[in-house]
Amino acid sequence: MQRKIYLDMHSLAEAQQLFWSRFQAHGTGEETIASRSARGRVTAGPISARFSSPSFHSAAMDGLAVRAEDTFAATDDAPLTLRLDNGQATPINTGYPLPAEANAVIMIENVLLDDDGKTAVIRAPVYPWQHVRKVGEDIVATELLFPTGHQLRPPDIGALITGGCTTVRVRRRPRVTIIPTGSELVALEDCPEAVPVGKTIESNAIVLAGLAEQAGAEVTITPIVSDDFATIKAHLQTMLAADADLVIVNAGSSAGSADYTVRIIEELGEVLVHGITIMPGKPTILGTIGGKPVVGVPGYPVSAIIAMEQLVVPLLARMQGIHVEPPVTVKAILAKDMPSKSGIEEFRRMVVGRIGAHFVAAPLKQGAGAITTLTRANGILRIAAASEGEVHGREANIELLVPLPQVERTLLCTGSHDLCLDVLGDFLRQQDPAFPLASTHVGSLGGIMALKQGMCHLAGSHLLDPGDGSYNTTYIRKHLAGRDIRIVTLVHREQGFIVAPGNPKSIRSVHDLFGAGVRFINRQAGSGTRVLLDYELTRNDLDPDGIDGYQQDEYTHMAVAVAVLSGKADAGLGIKSAAKALGLGFVPLVEERYDLLIPGELFHTPMIRAVRAVIDTESFKRTVAGMGGYSTRETGKLVPLV
Amino acid sequence: MQRKIYLDMHSLAEAQQLFWSRFQAHGTGEETIASRSARGRVTAGPISARFSSPSFHSAAMDGLAVRAEDTFAATDDAPLTLRLDNGQATPINTGYPLPAEANAVIMIENVLLDDDGKTAVIRAPVYPWQHVRKVGEDIVATELLFPTGHQLRPPDIGALITGGCTTVRVRRRPRVTIIPTGSELVALEDCPEAVPVGKTIESNAIVLAGLAEQAGAEVTITPIVSDDFATIKAHLQTMLAADADLVIVNAGSSAGSADYTVRIIEELGEVLVHGITIMPGKPTILGTIGGKPVVGVPGYPVSAIIAMEQLVVPLLARMQGIHVEPPVTVKAILAKDMPSKSGIEEFRRMVVGRIGAHFVAAPLKQGAGAITTLTRANGILRIAAASEGEVHGREANIELLVPLPQVERTLLCTGSHDLCLDVLGDFLRQQDPAFPLASTHVGSLGGIMALKQGMCHLAGSHLLDPGDGSYNTTYIRKHLAGRDIRIVTLVHREQGFIVAPGNPKSIRSVHDLFGAGVRFINRQAGSGTRVLLDYELTRNDLDPDGIDGYQQDEYTHMAVAVAVLSGKADAGLGIKSAAKALGLGFVPLVEERYDLLIPGELFHTPMIRAVRAVIDTESFKRTVAGMGGYSTRETGKLVPLV
Repeated sequence: MQRKIYLDMHSLAEAQQLFWSRFQAHGTGEETIASRSARGRVTAGPISARFSSPSFHSAAMDGLAVRAEDTFAATDDAPLTLRLDNGQATPINTGYPLPAEANAVIMIENVLLDDDGKTAVIRAPVYPWQHVRKVGEDIVATELLFPTGHQLRPPDIGALITGGCTTVRVRRRPRVTIIPTGSELVALEDCPEAVPVGKTIESNAIVLAGLAEQAGAEVTITPIVSDDFATIKAHLQTMLAADADLVIVNAGSSAGSADYTVRIIEELGEVLVHGITIMPGKPTILGTIGGKPVVGVPGYPVSAIIAMEQLVVPLLARMQGIHVEPPVTVKAILAKDMPSKSGIEEFRRMVVGRIGAHFVAAPLKQGAGAITTLTRANGILRIAAASEGEVHGREANIELLVPLPQVERTLLCTGSHDLCLDVLGDFLRQQDPAFPLASTHVGSLGGIMALKQGMCHLAGSHLLDPGDGSYNTTYIRKHLAGRDIRIVTLVHREQGFIVAPGNPKSIRSVHDLFGAGVRFINRQAGSGTRVLLDYELTRNDLDPDGIDGYQQDEYTHMAVAVAVLSGKADAGLGIKSAAKALGLGFVPLVEERYDLLIPGELFHTPMIRAVRAVIDTESFKRTVAGMGGYSTRETGKLVPLV
Repeated sequence: MQRKIYLDMHSLAEAQQLFWSRFQAHGTGEETIASRSARGRVTAGPISARFSSPSFHSAAMDGLAVRAEDTFAATDDAPLTLRLDNGQATPINTGYPLPAEANAVIMIENVLLDDDGKTAVIRAPVYPWQHVRKVGEDIVATELLFPTGHQLRPPDIGALITGGCTTVRVRRRPRVTIIPTGSELVALEDCPEAVPVGKTIESNAIVLAGLAEQAGAEVTITPIVSDDFATIKAHLQTMLAADADLVIVNAGSSAGSADYTVRIIEELGEVLVHGITIMPGKPTILGTIGGKPVVGVPGYPVSAIIAMEQLVVPLLARMQGIHVEPPVTVKAILAKDMPSKSGIEEFRRMVVGRIGAHFVAAPLKQGAGAITTLTRANGILRIAAASEGEVHGREANIELLVPLPQVERTLLCTGSHDLCLDVLGDFLRQQDPAFPLASTHVGSLGGIMALKQGMCHLAGSHLLDPGDGSYNTTYIRKHLAGRDIRIVTLVHREQGFIVAPGNPKSIRSVHDLFGAGVRFINRQAGSGTRVLLDYELTRNDLDPDGIDGYQQDEYTHMAVAVAVLSGKADAGLGIKSAAKALGLGFVPLVEERYDLLIPGELFHTPMIRAVRAVIDTESFKRTVAGMGGYSTRETGKLVPLV
């Protein structure tokens, strides 16, 4: 039944092997360049010194150049006087050549110079060649400075210059041409005010270019080519005829009616691989035209980046003879189940942090279309093709996207979402050292569960107890009985109805949600906002079943606001700042307290201290108050858990 | 008695604190640049999205756009036919906008299209919003994309473009000006054939520039300024009046008669620090003129680099709001005692490798003048000021200069020195993965001791047993009794007298070393070459005391050759290739065997397999034979240890 799109899917390892083995290592050849411009370049052969260094016997210290034999009699009890006016001792600065007869230097600190400058007194002898840098002590002409395949760092350039190598033979940088294709694409520069309806901003080319440049390539990005077989084909031929060493076509790599790349490569050369059992990145095409590698990179930004990093970047390194080091990994406890399709290797974007002795990792959302899952992630979990997924609470290897110490400073924040967390995160990044705040949104009750399982440093929560009007304490006592949990109030905030500008459906209370033609967008069960809605419905004796959209839910205030903005819904319950951010209307319903819940055992760690210090500043409170819908009258206050 | 040079020496931590606190963090200000050019730059404030992404509901898959409600009846048993000609189902490609009435996409793989293109059959329903990317699913306009102080990576640029940020506000790069000073300095480009007598090639500026550029700075290097107080002062004033944010004067930072930097900074501004209790790097000057930081960096290349890395690079990072991560460290067993002066923090350059379960580190030579100690090192041992040194066999923390996996692939080679090891190292670097060969030279017997203590992967040795004419086996049986040691012959080579070109002192045998006016240069005790000399003397009944220079020794063949080249000695015993490399004369005395000794337990590791594979290649043997003085007739042969 299923239409076969990819004739032969390859595993990632097979695809890498097929693709890389096809192109000769060091395939871009060599060139001779000035040593001064060679930082980061890779030697194309062994590099030998032309000059020795030092090229003469020189003073290694400031002091007096002497014949060591003349100083042997000097002792503390019998100081020796040396003459400076007959060449017995000669003042000398570091680096200067030793006089012909001298064979040692007395450090200036060990010399008492006479006022007339004609004599000097010493109280200890020096031995021959003491404080002298002998010819060739650092570098001997003809000696090997660097082997083949050495990537030159700044001190290496110093050694080249010192060794007399004005120029150096290095691997030529690969030249990469990137062709963005797609009739739906538009350049950001052509969208001064908004994205035209139906159009998508082209953003992959500059990302792929950056990755290629980091790998040592020189990159050309061509203008956007529209989805036309003949146009793309002609364009690709022109680029190949020019001096490109590798061409990337983005996208048109999958099987939609406008996905021409694979047919074009077939016509002009050979398709080696179409379809790789990875997700994201499945529709990748690897081919060759006229002996040059041509890659069809998928259109989704995360797919494009994974295809680039797994297949193209290592090839660019091999072309230059550079060995790519594997990413640093840590073993981390998974905060969620992550089922995965067997037969597909999955690349899941994760936020990783250290809680006590363990690393903990929570997944970000899966969509290959969401570039922000990569920009917010600090690690990647690879779920092997043979696996059916990973299990909550187990340990798994996470490949790090940032240095390990940065992961160790990352604050894992979960629970309910509030825009003040972004402000908090921004302030925390201005600390030194900076504490990156990584927030995932699972609702207030989800946050309490994460606290219970030790999966976060702090959780935002605004869970109302309808019985006594209190926030959070009832739920903590119930779900975290016996645990030492500290409660720090972040803000009081207005919750209300987010509606279209001008409130065209006249939503003023929960009763209005039952009006004809009113479509509602809900928040997920377990969120404080959902608790609030249900409380208001119960209090007013209303049946949720009468609300059109009660079963449709979103996970964040902004997602609710977007549903209203896009016309998918007429109203949703949320915070004022979300409505304000998108220029929507807002009908206040109630003010509630939003707290940060923090495990007692972490309360005095540097990262939580930093959080509390930020919250207590006037500038934080001012910024939050400026967003509208917030009161900071109790911000930073500790709430007793009684 | 000791003349006081530095009025108040500061510890490194004190100097850092004094210097950095003086200059405002983010001191270089901000600028707005194109997002496309912002890779590596640091955000100067929180960056919010201007546009949502997607900006419309779009297809997440290639397939048919439908109303989900129209598909609910489809099952495997009761396939459902959808019409394509009346808008019930619309073919759609990934990324394209959904038709107004549609709310789901059926994947093309799950559709059987009719040949006439008018109908399609499905066997399963889709739920609302399945395979649809909703407005704002990735980015919601106004949301925070990046906090302050975020260094932008390639995917981040993609998020900026996608979020509609054509430009981005970032910290301005600091502008650094480097002034090389010193009348003894000459540019390499002015030395086409050789270094003029008494001159030194200026090589620090490009190294310091590279380090500053890696730290995000824009660098200007001025021409070399000669040692003249007024000239340097005027030049410095001009550079400060221009747009430099930080000026480096190199060198003139110590206390020689031409070391003007400190006096100039005193006259124009304020000296904050002169003299830091580190080695290398002691004479560093930290000052400020007109509110700008001015640094007097010492002249020795290693001193200059350490001062730059410890004091300037972190300041450049702070100016941009970048947090510098500490270097990765490993605990390694030290291969030698390393006594150190109390009160001085020492930076020792080390080669580190992994042997079995442990890391092992051997020191390179100490001189601050030897840039090659830094280019050959892969780690730094910092010996604290309070310490009197580190002890052989103990563990110490080593800061790594290369990625950890590269350290783990590093081959520690010690023992006797032969130029063929450089060829071996070059061939090993062409493997994938490359095995860096780090060789230290301690003589043949030193190598056997290192094997005994588990401090190396292999040791070069050519120890003659005068009793039976055998090489190495007698010594292994004696010193490594009970150990499984494999012996692989590397080469046979000629040993003889290295003499001045034309052999002016007519050295033809050991007898000639006793001639009047003949100065000899010896090798160190424990070296195979020393054993050979002593054997020849004993065999001929000659007393070493009669040789002028018998007590003067060097550690390598090249050092012996350099001693002859510089006129310090008339003859030394060594290998032909060393004489040939420096254009010296050579008088053959004997042919000897040079072996690699390898612990049995390492013999089948990938790195030792790689060594043996290289040695067995014809191209290796050809290269070695081409150097002169070598025979490869038994190269690669295993020598039985009986």
